Amino acid sequence: MAENPPSGKQTLAEGRHLNFVVRNGWEFVERRNISGIVVVIGTTNHGCLVLVTQWREPVKAWVVELPAGLAGDVPGSEKEALAEAAKRELLEETGFEASSMEPVLTGPPSPGISDEVVTFFRARGLVRSSRGGGVSEENVRAHAVPLSGLSDWLATVQARGMLVDPKVYAGAYVVRKEMDEWMYE
Amino acid sequence: MAENPPSGKQTLAEGRHLNFVVRNGWEFVERRNISGIVVVIGTTNHGCLVLVTQWREPVKAWVVELPAGLAGDVPGSEKEALAEAAKRELLEETGFEASSMEPVLTGPPSPGISDEVVTFFRARGLVRSSRGGGVSEENVRAHAVPLSGLSDWLATVQARGMLVDPKVYAGAYVVRKEMDEWMYE
Repeated sequence: MAENPPSGKQTLAEGRHLNFVVRNGWEFVERRNISGIVVVIGTTNHGCLVLVTQWREPVKAWVVELPAGLAGDVPGSEKEALAEAAKRELLEETGFEASSMEPVLTGPPSPGISDEVVTFFRARGLVRSSRGGGVSEENVRAHAVPLSGLSDWLATVQARGMLVDPKVYAGAYVVRKEMDEWMYE
Repeated sequence: MAENPPSGKQTLAEGRHLNFVVRNGWEFVERRNISGIVVVIGTTNHGCLVLVTQWREPVKAWVVELPAGLAGDVPGSEKEALAEAAKRELLEETGFEASSMEPVLTGPPSPGISDEVVTFFRARGLVRSSRGGGVSEENVRAHAVPLSGLSDWLATVQARGMLVDPKVYAGAYVVRKEMDEWMYE
């Protein structure tokens, strides 16, 4: 076996969606064939945060998450803009459409094991226009949760065995910060 | 090649720290030989949040994160309690010791691609007792950032090319919520 130079990347396995690689002594997975990952912090005009629940086989549980998805993963739309992907994923997963969609945060959720960097969009004025539920084999349920009762709602679903993706709290931080800024303006 | 039953797990590659597997059509990585993952939301009595920055090869960038680490990954301490791991990681990475350490949140940061579930600990009364910096080849820098200037600090380091792990905002949410509850009590 030829020795790789220290800076070289070695692919240990190629999957359909992920490659498992080692580079400079770090083992991690790379997403294949995407141009970005989008997450949507969406609220209705009635003070609800729109969340989704779906089965996540890697953790063998139903997980509460912000609506999210991949950009550029649909053949023919490899150059899809992130804001367009955010609108598409929001509609596909939840059936909601937003009156505005702005990028607010970017960051890597698991930088020790993955090359993923996600972009959070702030979506306002959400109105339900269709059923949602995800495409093909996805089985996504949408929930419009009053912000004033978010902690209680999350506690209830966790008591039933669901897990909560920490990005939900990052989204709650963004919304709460806006409310505080508005209060003290 | 023998066909796996639909519910079976197939290991596509075994690394030193991660296994790359497929189960029920989902590709993901599993952590090897750990009992948990801990993240520390630690504040000093002077209103600072303790953060770390370190190079993360998977995203080829310096990343701002909450202090964090693996439990049970040290031979001989496979049954290490999560709270003990949180104290150890906080001290190793930052040199800070806490007067209290309580679990506050649990969740999967990347449930589509990893079996990781992290436990967030709320640490109070942080005082610096040693240099920190991580063990062996780790190169971790600690920062005590005033909560009142957190957004500005994060904007500044991002302008220099650093990335911010979204779990930092989840931690900020926990601390801000406490402050609000205290204000309105």
